[in-house]
Amino acid sequence: MLKLFYERDTCALASHIALAEAGAAYETVRVRFRTDDQRKPEYLAINPKGRVPALVTDRGVLTETPAILVYIAQSFPAAKLAPLDDAFAFARVQSFNSYLCSTVHVAHAHGRRGYRWADDPATLEEMKRKVPQTVGDCFALIEREMFEGPWVMGDAYSISDAYLFTLADWMEGDGVDPARFPKILDHGRRMAERPAVKRALAEQGRATAP
Amino acid sequence: MLKLFYERDTCALASHIALAEAGAAYETVRVRFRTDDQRKPEYLAINPKGRVPALVTDRGVLTETPAILVYIAQSFPAAKLAPLDDAFAFARVQSFNSYLCSTVHVAHAHGRRGYRWADDPATLEEMKRKVPQTVGDCFALIEREMFEGPWVMGDAYSISDAYLFTLADWMEGDGVDPARFPKILDHGRRMAERPAVKRALAEQGRATAP
Repeated sequence: MLKLFYERDTCALASHIALAEAGAAYETVRVRFRTDDQRKPEYLAINPKGRVPALVTDRGVLTETPAILVYIAQSFPAAKLAPLDDAFAFARVQSFNSYLCSTVHVAHAHGRRGYRWADDPATLEEMKRKVPQTVGDCFALIEREMFEGPWVMGDAYSISDAYLFTLADWMEGDGVDPARFPKILDHGRRMAERPAVKRALAEQGRATAP
Repeated sequence: MLKLFYERDTCALASHIALAEAGAAYETVRVRFRTDDQRKPEYLAINPKGRVPALVTDRGVLTETPAILVYIAQSFPAAKLAPLDDAFAFARVQSFNSYLCSTVHVAHAHGRRGYRWADDPATLEEMKRKVPQTVGDCFALIEREMFEGPWVMGDAYSISDAYLFTLADWMEGDGVDPARFPKILDHGRRMAERPAVKRALAEQGRATAP
């Protein structure tokens, strides 16, 4: 059975939602960041990067959200979570996911995990100061240029929706007003109604949106 | 015909190498960063992110290296640039590429493009100071945990090799001694001998490694 290692309020939620959408048989294991469990030898043996998510499969461990999302889509093709038979459409899904992991998530991380790139406290504060701008710019680009509607890729729901929902949920905590982005806001509301999203949030011990 | 927009000494080299490896018919267009061509309206109409690479196809523009690499591998399956028929093996390629774009490239970018995340000059300097450590840590993890040998994924050459070669080439400029990583160093030397790599470097006006 697939086993997802996650922590609450991390990007692991995207993989969790995708597993639920796929109808996969899976279990989840919480890795508590508060007690630094992600840096303990037991977890580093699973994922030497000391991060979540990690998906344990019968052939080995997979890490990195874009890779896990596509793995789930390909392993459960009946769920139609990605355009698997169309290289161009598939590349657009990948491009969106890649932007989320390399630019949006990174912009967000400068607020809470700036120690990845600097040590000096004043520098960490200065990085934090720019987060509302950089994160806001990212979502402005998504709203204006990338989001097709009603789902990220247009008519077909995909793994990109689970990923966008997960990262857009951090926006307000990053000091960005979600009301600036009506399409993304509406997307989030529709996502929160999906049974797979409710299930994943409940399994992570989070209440669903009101 | 496929058209690749690139700038010299950027991650666009990975896509360029993959096109050459695939035997694709392509042309290249240089986007000069020195004159800020990536921020001019003509280029923003192609890629609103103002970055390279961008690959123009007959169905539209693709951006983000991991997406472009997989698109090339899927469009030219005879070149065998990725394990397209094995979801787990494919996910490992994707995981590697995702680590390069979201962690390795980002670590590097704090040395030269720190303005993405902060404005204050002292902060930019402080970010730059940590680059040798963060970039070195990334390549140490690749050398120790990820690199299978003789190619990144083991016996089969893949798009991950083109991507690793491209980013590892920046290591020395980031203040990291490549001699610390014998597998990656040897990989780079073997890559430099490949006709596709020589071709891509020559088309970008760069001399091949001695």
